[in-house]
Amino acid sequence: MSETRSLASYVVTGRWADIPADVQHEARRALVNYLGCALGGARDEAVELALRALAPCSGRPTAAVLGRDERLDPLHASLMNGISSHVYDYDDTTPKNYSHPSSPVASALFAYASANRVSGRQFIEAFVFGFEAESRVANAVYPAHYDAGWHITGTSGVFGAATAIGKLLGLGEQHMVWAIGLAATQAAGLREMFGSMAKSFHPGRSAQNGYAAALLAEAGFTAGERAIEGPRGFAAVTAARYDLSKVTDRLGVDFDLRANTYKPFPCGIVNHPTIDACIQLHEAHRIPAAEIASVQLRVAPLVLDLCNQTGITKGLQGKFSVYHGAAVGLVRGKAGIQEYTDAAVNDPAVKRVRELVRAAGDSSITEDQAHVTVETVDGRRVEAFIEESLGNLRRPLSDAQLEAKFRDQAAVNLPPDVVDTVIEQCWQIDRLDDVGALVEASRAQPVR
Amino acid sequence: MSETRSLASYVVTGRWADIPADVQHEARRALVNYLGCALGGARDEAVELALRALAPCSGRPTAAVLGRDERLDPLHASLMNGISSHVYDYDDTTPKNYSHPSSPVASALFAYASANRVSGRQFIEAFVFGFEAESRVANAVYPAHYDAGWHITGTSGVFGAATAIGKLLGLGEQHMVWAIGLAATQAAGLREMFGSMAKSFHPGRSAQNGYAAALLAEAGFTAGERAIEGPRGFAAVTAARYDLSKVTDRLGVDFDLRANTYKPFPCGIVNHPTIDACIQLHEAHRIPAAEIASVQLRVAPLVLDLCNQTGITKGLQGKFSVYHGAAVGLVRGKAGIQEYTDAAVNDPAVKRVRELVRAAGDSSITEDQAHVTVETVDGRRVEAFIEESLGNLRRPLSDAQLEAKFRDQAAVNLPPDVVDTVIEQCWQIDRLDDVGALVEASRAQPVR
Repeated sequence: MSETRSLASYVVTGRWADIPADVQHEARRALVNYLGCALGGARDEAVELALRALAPCSGRPTAAVLGRDERLDPLHASLMNGISSHVYDYDDTTPKNYSHPSSPVASALFAYASANRVSGRQFIEAFVFGFEAESRVANAVYPAHYDAGWHITGTSGVFGAATAIGKLLGLGEQHMVWAIGLAATQAAGLREMFGSMAKSFHPGRSAQNGYAAALLAEAGFTAGERAIEGPRGFAAVTAARYDLSKVTDRLGVDFDLRANTYKPFPCGIVNHPTIDACIQLHEAHRIPAAEIASVQLRVAPLVLDLCNQTGITKGLQGKFSVYHGAAVGLVRGKAGIQEYTDAAVNDPAVKRVRELVRAAGDSSITEDQAHVTVETVDGRRVEAFIEESLGNLRRPLSDAQLEAKFRDQAAVNLPPDVVDTVIEQCWQIDRLDDVGALVEASRAQPVR
Repeated sequence: MSETRSLASYVVTGRWADIPADVQHEARRALVNYLGCALGGARDEAVELALRALAPCSGRPTAAVLGRDERLDPLHASLMNGISSHVYDYDDTTPKNYSHPSSPVASALFAYASANRVSGRQFIEAFVFGFEAESRVANAVYPAHYDAGWHITGTSGVFGAATAIGKLLGLGEQHMVWAIGLAATQAAGLREMFGSMAKSFHPGRSAQNGYAAALLAEAGFTAGERAIEGPRGFAAVTAARYDLSKVTDRLGVDFDLRANTYKPFPCGIVNHPTIDACIQLHEAHRIPAAEIASVQLRVAPLVLDLCNQTGITKGLQGKFSVYHGAAVGLVRGKAGIQEYTDAAVNDPAVKRVRELVRAAGDSSITEDQAHVTVETVDGRRVEAFIEESLGNLRRPLSDAQLEAKFRDQAAVNLPPDVVDTVIEQCWQIDRLDDVGALVEASRAQPVR
């Protein structure tokens, strides 16, 4: 059987009972992380502009846009969810192929579930098998595909959305093959867009186009049947080297959700060990900002290549400043999206400490590590060393840390009691009779 | 100035007066050809299924779908127009890069013009400059891009639609750069889809996505600014070899509309010289089908590789049967879309003659040539030799031939007096105050 058909068959026949308990739980974690990111990003300018441009073309407003009042048709809602959830680059990452895998799949699924009754189990099934299809397509072409300049989140994402929505639509194998074909032939997204709003457009468009692929396939709209492995198919056309066995090997045994990671901080990943060390120092010593006299960082040399910005005044600049990361860790004991606003960058206590931070590159320090020394005005000296970066596969975020990340982001949009309700429903998503209720809760009473 | 910005600037500043008269006329010819194809294809199953799948997601029905009763939002109308106009593979081709250039551009423009007031001159301006932008992007990456397996009509088409709609929206240079960026990052379409409905989906999606790119750019949604030439841009990512000078050299002097060609017959292009010869014999001799005793073809060997189907019963098979092409040419003196229906294939006179045709491959005959000998039951013998294939750049379809092609297709959808009105408006499109009137005329009184 061809790789395309094998994958189609796998998604069509996969059931809740086939999903190991640890993978079920990882799916919940991925969805908690995803929904938090969507709520946190939902008022970003990229979302506002996309709504201004495209809402006038939206169809009947049957689907909710996560974290917002607007309702759109499910395809446009998928697009907006995708932009929101990726716009701060705070969503999940799988180190197997460096895609951000949840956004395309979950953005389409939440749009679908807000317009159609879907149980929590159906939702998780579609998420797990769509995620797996997407990630396996990405694995097959990684790294040549990514190195060539493709934004793999966009290109593989459309496979994830198409198969996940196709599963909820109840497509049979032949129709799922067409859905995969219509996904493959819409796969797009260039890394040249990094640094612009178009980057977050990629998972959004993948969600939207994958959803449309499934609707078209359901109607009987045909596509090439060897979309992945054919001589003019996705793998051959978009990757100089590829390994099709990664699409099918150990299908049903391995699950890439087990290789998923969650960023603890919404900034350049090389800053993470420094921030982590500073938060640990904050928690251990609670040194008031005014008593800090100096902060010395020893970091991997790459950190100073990528995140050396000083004299900053904007939240966006803070993401590329290891000095700002250290300062918010020490002063606030956290580095959530509210530590990367213009206001946080200009917070006098944060600014004072930031200007005391000095960093030295040290080639004995890995990119997963950082060493921080703080001296106080009265001559006290405290240190912290991070061995493994928080959020990597060897030191994953705990459920509690994921929940704290969720709360930090959701607080931008929702009052605290609603946040409590949403996070509780989210952890129990597979027990919900109707996932639409979760979507509704997450858009109630927006903070203005 | 970068290639992307140069192209943006060219489209933004281009005016009617900058378009040489011969190019203006070629634009009219391209639009006559385009509109005929859209009218002819509008009731194909691919369009019906796409409507069934996606019309429920359409926004306010402000735009007409060419050749149909339905109204959709302009983005979905662009998609349907693109499918209709390409579904019979009967639209234009530029031999410079083997794209079908008009469909993505005109499909978006007609949707726009049916929802917004656009004068004929504005329409032609947008068409000419959008067509040129699209074709130059295609030229830069051809042939490596096409050889790799990209359906260049889809990938370059989105640039054409984005720039054409961007021009009608009055985008300035910076916003046009973003429109091009948002086009580039949606460029998609695999040749693996050939032989399925997904092929005609490509120009449709290009039209729709290019239109959306222009709307997003208008709102200020940003994109990478070196979308064509950047190290992770369209050219580098999608072509092993490319020549960026083709984007900008002689911009404003050369126009690729001059290199556009129109298919005389809706079937495999290698059959065209044979059909042409048979139509000439029909016109010269009018031999009744019942009096034909034998038909001998000498054709390029490739013809027998590609179009050797015998014992056929379906219209679609007829497209790949040089025997059927010869028969309809001799019996009906034409080979329009009505000669490639199931009914035409089973027409007793056509069938009788088809079964008398014998073909021999001859390596002294080029793919632009054919030799046909017909013998009658009373022993008469007539011959025709085609030196250059009708429709190629050295023997272009005349305006009258384009008009006949239009009428043949439009007759599927519209009564004869409406066809007269539409064709007349189409030839005078640059004098119309409102192109919407032409669109309205072309959907009036559909034949059921």
